[in-house]
Amino acid sequence: MADNRPIGVFDSGLGGLTVVKSLQYLLPSESILYLGDTARVPYGNKSKKLIESYSTQISTFLSEKGCKAIVVACNTASSQALDMLQDTFKIPVIGVIEPGVNMAIDKSQNGYIGIIGTVATIQSDAYQKALKLKNENVIVLNQPCPLFVPLVEEGWITGDVPKLAAATYLKGMNAEQVDTIILGCTHYPLLKDIIQSAANDGTILVDSAEAVAAEVKRILDKNNLSTEITASGKLECFVTDVPLRFEMLARQFLGSPIEHVSTVDLP
Amino acid sequence: MADNRPIGVFDSGLGGLTVVKSLQYLLPSESILYLGDTARVPYGNKSKKLIESYSTQISTFLSEKGCKAIVVACNTASSQALDMLQDTFKIPVIGVIEPGVNMAIDKSQNGYIGIIGTVATIQSDAYQKALKLKNENVIVLNQPCPLFVPLVEEGWITGDVPKLAAATYLKGMNAEQVDTIILGCTHYPLLKDIIQSAANDGTILVDSAEAVAAEVKRILDKNNLSTEITASGKLECFVTDVPLRFEMLARQFLGSPIEHVSTVDLP
Repeated sequence: MADNRPIGVFDSGLGGLTVVKSLQYLLPSESILYLGDTARVPYGNKSKKLIESYSTQISTFLSEKGCKAIVVACNTASSQALDMLQDTFKIPVIGVIEPGVNMAIDKSQNGYIGIIGTVATIQSDAYQKALKLKNENVIVLNQPCPLFVPLVEEGWITGDVPKLAAATYLKGMNAEQVDTIILGCTHYPLLKDIIQSAANDGTILVDSAEAVAAEVKRILDKNNLSTEITASGKLECFVTDVPLRFEMLARQFLGSPIEHVSTVDLP
Repeated sequence: MADNRPIGVFDSGLGGLTVVKSLQYLLPSESILYLGDTARVPYGNKSKKLIESYSTQISTFLSEKGCKAIVVACNTASSQALDMLQDTFKIPVIGVIEPGVNMAIDKSQNGYIGIIGTVATIQSDAYQKALKLKNENVIVLNQPCPLFVPLVEEGWITGDVPKLAAATYLKGMNAEQVDTIILGCTHYPLLKDIIQSAANDGTILVDSAEAVAAEVKRILDKNNLSTEITASGKLECFVTDVPLRFEMLARQFLGSPIEHVSTVDLP
């Protein structure tokens, strides 16, 4: 039985559209409802309690819209609120952390794995715990990179400023011979080239967006939730505020313009 | 008659504490209630409608707490919501824009005045309009500097990254012989040295925090709202969320640790 209900995807802002892009590539038949909590972005410097409350409001919204699964396309929310969401909602809730962790462990040769993300993601230790649970022998290095999100949102994804910022942030990991780095934030895939240049030669970058799309496919297949393969997936977007530079940013993350956007008030 | 009620000060986050610092310096007898809307920071990329709604909620809170005046220590809120607040509330409501504009016009020799701020502040044209209203002959140059706030919050207020960012942002103003630059964001005083070095020699930087403190003093005097000169002003802080790095940031902006902080839920 095909299940034509949409997949719900949410992020604190528009960065989660990089996950939507990967989902559209891997699962072109699936329809997607995206919610960007643009009125309350960023989550990266908010408390766990607040992030849990926002994530519950959004998941309730997506679930009431008839979604068959929810993708938490936000590393901060995945690290702070995923367990709670999985306990609360009956449909599958998929975060970005575990898929990235599994891919990193597969790829690393020397077992030195680096994680870069927002301050909240790094402080949560969610990646470190997930890596150690999967393989207790890996050596994990953390580095918060709070300037990367504003650099991407400013459109400074090439040039000396992002280069210098990346070199500063990666100094420790390079010294420790990290061979695999998890891009632990939905904005970071846009800085992939800069990060690759700043890292030691041959370092593998794990893009969580690609990893999570593969995990969504696996879960849909396993639970008989996939849509008809002949369907043509649609994307509908909701935001909690129409931010400045919305169109430029949306196009940047998604790779194409967004056509259907509605504004929604959350409690 | 002395008026011992406190002055209310608010900002989207903790940056407005630079205004508190200037107020404490100029008016040490005055007590201050500060509200930082840390759950919803930053305002710089939000819509006018949303900023008006947040500003009204906060001003109602401060007014119900018995404040005798309200200082909108946030350039974005001053540019988007000040008129509306002045129409709604009966106590004086003072923004940061007009005081900065008056000081810039006083200081500029050649009439070329630059404004740097968030995207929302610059797009609002509030500074440009206020400058032209005061003196239609001034030439105004605008430059949004969206990376400056995250640089300050990361603590990168010296070194190559902020230097390079400042040089990039000020290129246009330097070419046009701007001789006075308004620091149109409460975070920017912390980057004063970097901005001064990146600007042409002899450029005057107008710190809105100092300008607004002088304006508050003038308005309190004029309306018989000043406290007893023998009083010892107290500071009480409210935040809508306790953000990560709160103590480090508060100390950075205020110049001393914050002692009394409460968390408050706004609607």
